[in-house]
Amino acid sequence: MEIERLSTGVEGLDEKMEGGLPKGSVTLITGKTGTGKTAFSASFLYAGAMKGESGVYITAEEREEDIKGDIKAMFGWDFDTLEKKKLIKFITIKPVFPGKAISGEELSRLVKLYIFDLANKIESAIKETKAKRIVLDSISIIEMFIKDAYMCRVAMIQLTDKLREMGVTSVLTGTIPEATEVLSGGGIIEFIVDSIIKLDFVPVAEEFKRTMTIRKMRRTDHSIYIHPFDITDAGLKLIEIK
Amino acid sequence: MEIERLSTGVEGLDEKMEGGLPKGSVTLITGKTGTGKTAFSASFLYAGAMKGESGVYITAEEREEDIKGDIKAMFGWDFDTLEKKKLIKFITIKPVFPGKAISGEELSRLVKLYIFDLANKIESAIKETKAKRIVLDSISIIEMFIKDAYMCRVAMIQLTDKLREMGVTSVLTGTIPEATEVLSGGGIIEFIVDSIIKLDFVPVAEEFKRTMTIRKMRRTDHSIYIHPFDITDAGLKLIEIK
Amino acid sequence: MEIERLSTGVEGLDEKMEGGLPKGSVTLITGKTGTGKTAFSASFLYAGAMKGESGVYITAEEREEDIKGDIKAMFGWDFDTLEKKKLIKFITIKPVFPGKAISGEELSRLVKLYIFDLANKIESAIKETKAKRIVLDSISIIEMFIKDAYMCRVAMIQLTDKLREMGVTSVLTGTIPEATEVLSGGGIIEFIVDSIIKLDFVPVAEEFKRTMTIRKMRRTDHSIYIHPFDITDAGLKLIEIK
Amino acid sequence: MEIERLSTGVEGLDEKMEGGLPKGSVTLITGKTGTGKTAFSASFLYAGAMKGESGVYITAEEREEDIKGDIKAMFGWDFDTLEKKKLIKFITIKPVFPGKAISGEELSRLVKLYIFDLANKIESAIKETKAKRIVLDSISIIEMFIKDAYMCRVAMIQLTDKLREMGVTSVLTGTIPEATEVLSGGGIIEFIVDSIIKLDFVPVAEEFKRTMTIRKMRRTDHSIYIHPFDITDAGLKLIEIK
Amino acid sequence: MEIERLSTGVEGLDEKMEGGLPKGSVTLITGKTGTGKTAFSASFLYAGAMKGESGVYITAEEREEDIKGDIKAMFGWDFDTLEKKKLIKFITIKPVFPGKAISGEELSRLVKLYIFDLANKIESAIKETKAKRIVLDSISIIEMFIKDAYMCRVAMIQLTDKLREMGVTSVLTGTIPEATEVLSGGGIIEFIVDSIIKLDFVPVAEEFKRTMTIRKMRRTDHSIYIHPFDITDAGLKLIEIK
Amino acid sequence: MEIERLSTGVEGLDEKMEGGLPKGSVTLITGKTGTGKTAFSASFLYAGAMKGESGVYITAEEREEDIKGDIKAMFGWDFDTLEKKKLIKFITIKPVFPGKAISGEELSRLVKLYIFDLANKIESAIKETKAKRIVLDSISIIEMFIKDAYMCRVAMIQLTDKLREMGVTSVLTGTIPEATEVLSGGGIIEFIVDSIIKLDFVPVAEEFKRTMTIRKMRRTDHSIYIHPFDITDAGLKLIEIK
Repeated sequence: MEIERLSTGVEGLDEKMEGGLPKGSVTLITGKTGTGKTAFSASFLYAGAMKGESGVYITAEEREEDIKGDIKAMFGWDFDTLEKKKLIKFITIKPVFPGKAISGEELSRLVKLYIFDLANKIESAIKETKAKRIVLDSISIIEMFIKDAYMCRVAMIQLTDKLREMGVTSVLTGTIPEATEVLSGGGIIEFIVDSIIKLDFVPVAEEFKRTMTIRKMRRTDHSIYIHPFDITDAGLKLIEIK
Repeated sequence: MEIERLSTGVEGLDEKMEGGLPKGSVTLITGKTGTGKTAFSASFLYAGAMKGESGVYITAEEREEDIKGDIKAMFGWDFDTLEKKKLIKFITIKPVFPGKAISGEELSRLVKLYIFDLANKIESAIKETKAKRIVLDSISIIEMFIKDAYMCRVAMIQLTDKLREMGVTSVLTGTIPEATEVLSGGGIIEFIVDSIIKLDFVPVAEEFKRTMTIRKMRRTDHSIYIHPFDITDAGLKLIEIK
Repeated sequence: MEIERLSTGVEGLDEKMEGGLPKGSVTLITGKTGTGKTAFSASFLYAGAMKGESGVYITAEEREEDIKGDIKAMFGWDFDTLEKKKLIKFITIKPVFPGKAISGEELSRLVKLYIFDLANKIESAIKETKAKRIVLDSISIIEMFIKDAYMCRVAMIQLTDKLREMGVTSVLTGTIPEATEVLSGGGIIEFIVDSIIKLDFVPVAEEFKRTMTIRKMRRTDHSIYIHPFDITDAGLKLIEIK
Repeated sequence: MEIERLSTGVEGLDEKMEGGLPKGSVTLITGKTGTGKTAFSASFLYAGAMKGESGVYITAEEREEDIKGDIKAMFGWDFDTLEKKKLIKFITIKPVFPGKAISGEELSRLVKLYIFDLANKIESAIKETKAKRIVLDSISIIEMFIKDAYMCRVAMIQLTDKLREMGVTSVLTGTIPEATEVLSGGGIIEFIVDSIIKLDFVPVAEEFKRTMTIRKMRRTDHSIYIHPFDITDAGLKLIEIK
Repeated sequence: MEIERLSTGVEGLDEKMEGGLPKGSVTLITGKTGTGKTAFSASFLYAGAMKGESGVYITAEEREEDIKGDIKAMFGWDFDTLEKKKLIKFITIKPVFPGKAISGEELSRLVKLYIFDLANKIESAIKETKAKRIVLDSISIIEMFIKDAYMCRVAMIQLTDKLREMGVTSVLTGTIPEATEVLSGGGIIEFIVDSIIKLDFVPVAEEFKRTMTIRKMRRTDHSIYIHPFDITDAGLKLIEIK
Repeated sequence: MEIERLSTGVEGLDEKMEGGLPKGSVTLITGKTGTGKTAFSASFLYAGAMKGESGVYITAEEREEDIKGDIKAMFGWDFDTLEKKKLIKFITIKPVFPGKAISGEELSRLVKLYIFDLANKIESAIKETKAKRIVLDSISIIEMFIKDAYMCRVAMIQLTDKLREMGVTSVLTGTIPEATEVLSGGGIIEFIVDSIIKLDFVPVAEEFKRTMTIRKMRRTDHSIYIHPFDITDAGLKLIEIK
């Protein structure tokens, strides 16, 4: 049984993971601020669009126009045009202030509703665009919203199970707090996803250096090296060390 | 009095522990995300099935089909067929949202019920299949559910005592939080089990390296080395260092 | 599409970031106490004023006369005169003791009001002076005021979105607690801003050394070096290492 | 005034401490999981039994039959036979779930009762067997039960004072959490006991190494070396380094 | 505009900071226990008194007679005589037990009153003696009294603003907890003051070494070296390293 | 003004501190478990008794007979005889369980009473014996009893002020938690006392080494070296390094 793979859109990366992300899997792209998570996410959707596979970009923190502007400035890719061609669809799920501080008895019910509602929104967008790929940028603010560790783990299991049932291949972005060596702020999502790609920005003497590491990928014989990479005009690109 | 041993199914490992896991003991397989805990668990049950000993796989977090798919992709083992032959049985104990946030006076009663119920489910499955081996994947979400350290320790003692009374040989998986050197997230289960096998994924210069260490094994003169290992098509395999 | 840039007023810095801060972006200037955050902020506004672009300096902690005095003593720049010429405007939003300790249900409503009110004050000052640049010194006491991490993140998203909608280019100062390697006290604002410039004061043997690093800058191919800098009579100045 | 000493039963250890544990003293055997605390405790009681001095083994966490089985498997000592000869007596004080979560006003009274009850049980067993030695395995779950640090310290003082008044020589086992360098989980018991023997399991390159150190022993000119030791068929044995 | 400077009274220090502490500024003298904070404070007031400038010494923790005795023993300076000559005035603001544990709604009002009352006491003493210099020894117990970080920051801003409005030059002492590298116990006061001088007591091989570093000084081109210093009969003295 | 000094009774130590502890001062002897604090305390009282100066030994944790036994075993000093000669007096202030968990409003009043009562007991014993020296072993359990940091600091100030007013020279023992580099468990007492002598037990390769350091001593030009020391039959003894 051969597993179908989707290209990441990152030059040199697919060959480190038997051809790309396993179809239907959930991948966490995690890194500190400024390490290139949005650039990675855009590359993943762009690679699909170039082959006629539509994708959904769910933004939970940044403004749609800022993300599109960033992508255009970095790579020259015009996501507005791709959206008109129905190859990309943006959804904004801006966090709002809860009516009151959530805690105690109602939290459980609220979290259930929240995950149910989020899954519904994603499902509608997928049906509308026949999307094969989705990006959820970022999972961190959702983790932050659910303060109880047990409930957060259950919610993350339910959300990723629903993504798998929808048949899409998902990329979630997560943020790593500065000055730590963890994989996520909450320490939960990394146990739930199928794959983890960690982006880093490491101080080396008087300079910073970008690196990418595949920390986990189910059903895949993946590279276990720490790969340096560049953000070039044409997208992300792994640097091969001979 | 010679102790009966059950093969782990990991090539080269049994000979590091006087022949295998002591019959009736409880072993914790612990490691960070992506270190091979599911692969180890599957190997343990598969080794039994190949000798006609049936086993139960209790999954508390992942979907049954994902685990079966992972095993098939990694090793080519068909757990669906083994399940039809009554050599493997899967039980799912998916965590649910509690009706309300649990705390205070009711917690003690609830935890007692939870452990009682879990033990009953396991016992039924064992009786039905005459299982000799069980895997509980993972114990971490159960630890997370019981927030009070003292109650958690008591619950873990009761659960492992019940497993010993059922006469099965048990493998529990646990997750080690990233960027720590502990043996479990809760710091409790490691004092309760008979044996601990720790899986690791250590960054060495520009690469990651997998290792396996027997940290504790009662009634056994076990290896105290840190063994590198590979995940091969034919299962896990210790690398001998000459 | 060429992005418009605003000079930072720091000698040698603009050329490290394609010409200056992207128009309309939000930049965090962060550092431990005494690393030169006020000096940086003043340079940014002064560089604008010298080209006839007016700016607003919002002080949340220090007295207006102290800031003006500091700037005069350091660089000889007369902000009083610039204020008379309508090129600079100071707003003081001194923190007050809350009527009572804020917590629970009312916090959500209060935080919403606080951010709404702060944004209004800033908007009025911008309209009055047709300001192109604003400095908010410091964001840290506002972060400290909103104790809940989730609400703080939402508030920071709303505040920076409003700044972007007003069309100004913003510099926020933040304080890094001593003896840590984080980017801010609350660990939140760094994920929200477009750019981060980190100032440092590093003990080297028997001496301290000032450094400046661009940690993140969207839509910009920026320097990834750690630059030493001096506070000279004529303003801040990067030291070029050949 | 010569102090009477009781042999530890560990080969080579008595001569490092003027002949053995001071009569009537309370010794903490502390170490991480799998370092040999039960082996040490058994050696202490066995050494007494071989000289006709009876002892009591109080188990608070493990099943009596597991401890007996472990001792038999490790050293071939038959504690069942010794129990029939009235040379060893086992008491089980299995922790139970409290009727409700204990806290607030009742805690003080409950802790007093708990210590009173435990002391009574120990005293009866001592009278019944005329025991000279007792083992309490482990003190850690009792420390965990009493969450308030001050009350825990007072309870530990009262418990050890009662043991001293009973005239027995006591060995308490304690567990050190993984990845720490403390002497106990609660940080309290080490200030209360007369002697501390610390067992360790230190990773050295690709291997783990067992060590034993006398950290404190009142009225004794003890060794201050870190001694490696082996668990042999004939009991624990210090390795002499020439 | 030349800034007026007040001598610190520490031999060799004024020349490291353009002549002394800026008039009207607030300086934090911070260090671990036993590093010489009281010696520094006394030197500052004594240097003023020798020029006919009177000063106020506010003690919040130690007894007036102990401070005077310490100063006499160290340097032979007779503060009793200086007090009779109206050149020095001691105020004791011994902390008292609050009528009840302060928290919740009343805290805000209480803190306001506390700061108001403290400022009044200081102002009266300044008016009575026409003081130019004040020492507040120590700010740490006041920080400790106000447990909420936000309120503490606001209170510290209000207190230092009031000191600046009174026109005096102030020295506040703060204590650094052992085994940390922070600048104060609360992590707040260092952001509020104009200047920070850190005293240290560094273990070097088999010996401890005293050092003094100017960590921050507004409007001043100050030394950035770590200066060793001695406590001599004639006062504190920097050691010049050629 | 020459300061009167009291010998510490530790061979070689008085000459490191201008002749001994300053009369009327409060000294903290602090160290981890097993570092010799009781041995130091006994030496201090014994040195006084040998010159006809009586002393009081207040024990808050250990039994009087255990302390006397330890001293006899270590040094051969007979404190029972000294007590009959009225040269030493023991007071036991064994901690008891509070009637209920103390917290909230009553804590402040309770702490006041506790300190008042403790000071009274000490004062009576001093009057009865005309004591010049007192030992309070240990201050740590009192620190632990008062959980609020501000109240604890106030209580410690009041207690030490009362000791100074009684005219005695005091030695308080404190315990340093294992695996830390702090000076006390609560981080408070070290700021209150006049002098600090730190005892250490440092692992050096395969061995532990005892050291003593004078960390602070008011009105004294003290040694700043880390002195190794031995516990000999004749008392503690500094080892001179040439």
